[in-house]
Formats: sequence, C-alpha cells, structure tokens
Amino acid sequence: MQRFSSDVYRERLARAATLTGAAGLDGIVVSTGPDLRYLTGSRADTFERLTALVIPASGSPRLVVARLELASLAESAVADLGIEVADWVDGQDPYALALDALPADPAIAVSDAMPALHVIPLAERTGRTPALATAVLRELRMIKDPAEVEALRAAGAAIDRVHARMGEWLKPGRTEREVADDIRQAIVAEGHTGAEFIIVGSGPNGADPHHEFSDRVIERDDIVVIDIGGPVEPGYNSDSTRTYCFTEPPADIADAYAALELAQRTAVAAARPGVSAESVDAAARDILVEHGLGEQFIHRTGHGIGLSVHEEPYIVGGNDITLRPGMAFSVEPGVYFSGRWGARIEDIVVITDDGCEPVNNRPHHLVNLSAE
Amino acid sequence: MQRFSSDVYRERLARAATLTGAAGLDGIVVSTGPDLRYLTGSRADTFERLTALVIPASGSPRLVVARLELASLAESAVADLGIEVADWVDGQDPYALALDALPADPAIAVSDAMPALHVIPLAERTGRTPALATAVLRELRMIKDPAEVEALRAAGAAIDRVHARMGEWLKPGRTEREVADDIRQAIVAEGHTGAEFIIVGSGPNGADPHHEFSDRVIERDDIVVIDIGGPVEPGYNSDSTRTYCFTEPPADIADAYAALELAQRTAVAAARPGVSAESVDAAARDILVEHGLGEQFIHRTGHGIGLSVHEEPYIVGGNDITLRPGMAFSVEPGVYFSGRWGARIEDIVVITDDGCEPVNNRPHHLVNLSAE
Repeated sequence: MQRFSSDVYRERLARAATLTGAAGLDGIVVSTGPDLRYLTGSRADTFERLTALVIPASGSPRLVVARLELASLAESAVADLGIEVADWVDGQDPYALALDALPADPAIAVSDAMPALHVIPLAERTGRTPALATAVLRELRMIKDPAEVEALRAAGAAIDRVHARMGEWLKPGRTEREVADDIRQAIVAEGHTGAEFIIVGSGPNGADPHHEFSDRVIERDDIVVIDIGGPVEPGYNSDSTRTYCFTEPPADIADAYAALELAQRTAVAAARPGVSAESVDAAARDILVEHGLGEQFIHRTGHGIGLSVHEEPYIVGGNDITLRPGMAFSVEPGVYFSGRWGARIEDIVVITDDGCEPVNNRPHHLVNLSAE
Repeated sequence: MQRFSSDVYRERLARAATLTGAAGLDGIVVSTGPDLRYLTGSRADTFERLTALVIPASGSPRLVVARLELASLAESAVADLGIEVADWVDGQDPYALALDALPADPAIAVSDAMPALHVIPLAERTGRTPALATAVLRELRMIKDPAEVEALRAAGAAIDRVHARMGEWLKPGRTEREVADDIRQAIVAEGHTGAEFIIVGSGPNGADPHHEFSDRVIERDDIVVIDIGGPVEPGYNSDSTRTYCFTEPPADIADAYAALELAQRTAVAAARPGVSAESVDAAARDILVEHGLGEQFIHRTGHGIGLSVHEEPYIVGGNDITLRPGMAFSVEPGVYFSGRWGARIEDIVVITDDGCEPVNNRPHHLVNLSAE
C-alpha cells in the first residue's frame, strides 16, 4: 500500500488550512518529506529543485513542482484532491510561483524540514524571515487515525519478527558490525523498505544509549542492547529494543534488569488519555529511582513515532501535553553503567480510549540466547 | 572504514575557512548531513536538537552539540582536530552558543541542508536572513581526493555485483515491486549500507525516467530499465543503470539502443580535464540528435556524486564549469518512447589527469537475460 485513500488527505488539508488561519498566517509552505507525505501521500524526495505545497488560510492549495519531477506525484493523492499543480522548468522562479498562491506581502510559515536552500530564497522574496509551521503540522500529525494505527501495528509486527530471529545472528565471537549487517538484511527481509537505525551495544558499548555498532567482538558474558527499526509501507516506522545475554547474569545485573522491566511495564500501564506526557516519563523514572537506579536512567522515556521516527509527543519531563487517543510513542526506559553494561526495553504504544495498545509483543525479559 | 584519516579533515577545514573569508563572510554554520560528514567525518544525524559546526573566517571552529548527542562524535575526527566542542542541555540556547564563536553582528551563511527548524532561530538572533554557504562547500566537495576516489571505486564494484546477478530476480511474470524487493536485499548483501534508490521500469514504465517501481507484471517482450544505488562505507554512493530484455528486440529498438550505447561511450570519451560540464552533455546529445533521437533524450546527461547522490558538477547544458581531476559524476543518457519503452545506460566516472576513469564496468549492451 503506497498511500491511504484520498478522503484521508482531503480531511488533513482542510484541517491544515483552518489551523493556518487560526495561527494568524496567510499560508504555510511545506517542502518534501514526512509533512508533504502526510498531507498528500506524495513521497517526493527532491532537494535541489523546489517541490512545495502551499496551503493558504483561505483558498485552494497549490503544489509547486519541477516539470521533470511531475512523475513523483503519480502515486500520491494530488490528482484526486483537486490541488492545483504549478510546474516549472529550469530558468523559472519556483519561489515566485509558490508565493503567487498567497495574498500580496504574505505572512508565511515553512515546514521544519524545509532546507535552507529553499528557506533563504523565500525569505528574500517576501522580505522577511518566515515563521515555522511546527505547531500547525504537529497538531495534525500527532493524532494517528485508524489507518495510521494499522500501519504502526504492521511495522511493530515486522520488527518483532526480526527480534524473534535474533539468535540466528547474535553470538559470542562475532563483531557488532557483523551482527548489524545481518540484522539490516533481516529488517528488509521481514517487510521494511529499509533499516533506519541499528544499535548493537555489547558489554560496555551497551552503556552508551547512542552507540550504533562497532568492530568490538561480542563476548560470552556480555549484555547486549539491540535497538532497531525502519519504515514499512506506507511509510510508518517501527522501533523496538530488547536486551540479550548468553549466560545467566550475576545477581546485580539481574536485579537491575528486573527493576527496569518493572519500570517499563509501569510506564506502559500509566499511558492513557488525559494524563500528561511527562507523567509517563515519571512513572518509569520513579520506579528506577526507588531501586537506586535514577542516576543510571540518563535519557527521556520516549518519543512520538509515525512517518518520522522521532516526532511529538516526546515523553519527557517538562512536556505537559495531554495524551489523547491516537497518539503513538515509544516507552523505552534504560539503565546504563558506564564502562560495564547497559539495558533498555522499548515498545511502541498507541493511546486508546481507555489506556494504550502496545504494537510490539516480544517478551520483555533479559533473553538468554544460549538457553533458548 | 568509518572515516578517513584526521589529516584529510584538517586540510578541508582550513580550506573552508579560507573560502569563507574570500566570500566576505564572518563564518559559516554547517548542520548535520553530507557537509558535516565531509568536514569532520561525523555521521551525526540529529534533527530536533541543533548540531552545527561553526567555521569562522578567522579563528577556531566550534561544534555545537546537545550533550546527549556527544556520543555521535565518537567515530568522527572531531577530537583529533582540536575543534572546540560546545555542548548544551535542554533549556540552553544552542543558537547563541553557535553565534558566540563569531564576531558581533556576524555575516553568516548556512549549509544548504540546514532545516528551517534551525535556520529561522539563527535568523532571529542575528536580525537578518543568513546567506547560503552553497558556493563555499561546493568548491570543496566537488574535487574528490584519492581516498574518496577509492571509496567511489568500491561503491561502483558493489553495484556492479548487483547488476551481475540481475538474472536471478528479473524475470517475466514477476512484478516490478517483487524484483525491486529482491534488488534491495542484494544491494545490502553486496556491501552497501542501504538501498538509496531502485528503479525497475518495465515496458511503458521505462519511458518515465523518474518511475521507481510498481505492481506491473513484467512481460516477455519488455525492455526493462534498472537504475540502482546506495552508500558504501564511509558514505560514498553508487549509481548505475543497465537495460535488460528477455527476447531479441525488434529492429527499431535495437537501432535506437545502438545509438544510445554510442552516445554514452562518446560522452565518457569526452569527459576530461579542461572541458566544460555542458560539453559532455553535448557529446551525448549530439549523437542522439544525429540519429533522430534528440526528442527522446529528455533529461540532463549526469550529476556529480559522492557523499550525496546528486551534487555538483551537473552535466547539463548551461553549466560551463570546467572539469578538473577528481570530479566524479554520472554519464547516463537515455531514450524514452512514451507509452512504449525506454532505455538508459549509466556509469560513474572520475576525471583523471588526462581523461576519466569509469568505476562501473558491466557490459553496456542491451542484456538479454534469457540468452545469458
């Protein structure tokens, strides 16, 4: 499935126009990437030549696109939506073409991802620096509709299948890189269109939450953090972490892991409509603090996910946004012992009417691959 | 190999500072992506939180990075280069931290890829819209050094291995998507870190140069364009097109293909130091025009390649840039018969002291997979 039905995008465009007006803007200019894909189903990925959707607060949207990129719209909903397509050829000014869809001297905002290559010419032609359309687009994208939730479930099932096969590749004596290479192939083989990120953090490398993988040889008594994901058609991302070992861990590791498992479960149980994003972070953090592991939990509890791997709502102290049905995010507390080992457990959950639904369903315990 | 030796980056930084001053700027601000990777070996890929390298025209560079992203620098050359690392935590102003590395009221330029999310706050704090650092960075990145050329050779060999295996997957009765899925796995299996793009253009779909792949079932008398590539460590891209069939083509197709093959070979032969980029485009185009196929060649002849799949020099009419040793680009003329069929032949070449070296070495003829 390349995209959703056209009615989905029609509704989104109408809401975007309403929110644009409510923000006091004459229009927003949305460049390629997840925002354009969200609004039109277009997976156009142009960089040098401007492709941008102009949404006026009142009036019809216009899509500016280089003539030779017109084919990039073929699988999108653009033709069905009655969006005016303004194509241009080298030598024409695409920025003027975009601004022509708006009133004179417009107050515009641009999408977060628009590259400077296009922001600067728009600023020059309007004579002022544009605002950011962050708030308008975040409000739309943050609440997943049923088709999006279904896509997140499919992504979750795909990455679960990769974790289920971990014993095929994750073995003492191999390097993290060798394991990562196998995982990359499996991520694609299990239904993703690509691997977006792969963390194989063995032994001391597991203590760095941003480690990717290295040439370190995995040892028999290592604890290994595997955090992997990527997009599944029509573009929604998976992201799941499990932690593995090859021998029974010593008591201090087993105890810390048990507290982590409790923290993750407690945070998932806390995720429901009406509570704040930061309260879910606190639910995990409180458990770890109680167990003397507060200093070992050195990052936020989670991040929203959808067409982007990281988006609102961020599950972090200070984010008082209220959770609503359809919000999707990771719940991924971890503990990190610098120079020694680390562990993390991560599921994606979707807020339902009365709680949340995890889309990842692999066991949460410290998986001993030699015993399985 | 994650990156080159630190001396490579030291030299690049010094040249960037010189070019910044020569452009009348106080400094450039480079966000994550190919430009930062080129300058420091960092593959940091942050979006929400500013990571940016500030290069003053005179004085020391400063890298601004969120504290929790510090680990993203681990495999880069940053520590070896004596770059001041200014880390920040949520609540601090990373834009002020960046501008502090420059004189008061600085004239700055930002890298093309910097997202609006960071461009707008920088503009607000300097009180003016930044310029683009396009020219400064293009001049650097356009000329590949020997280590980069070696990386492009490795990428070329990897994608050649995928083309060599095409008969395993490309068969009548299969859909373009099924073939693309197999190619995606092979691109990774043959040494790429991912598939950046996959075109399987069968029959009429081959006539659209921007077609990717579809659910169309491939037929026995189709001509099929396969255009594929992706990055190989340390980040340099492959990009090669070959055209396939399953039966002896009719005379009109064989004749047009023979002209295309001649056009591609002639353009490669024309690529040498001292001539213009547009002269290489003309070399291919003239042959096709001579054979009555000028109207069928509807795109430029090529694009530069390196850490980005598309970069300078563009091999296109109007680009009078003079080719110099170390420039790397595609030579990829094509012919497109709307609604019927298309063909394209693409090699990456690197300009040498007296000509050019193709890094792709698969046969150029219309490959009949049933006969091989």
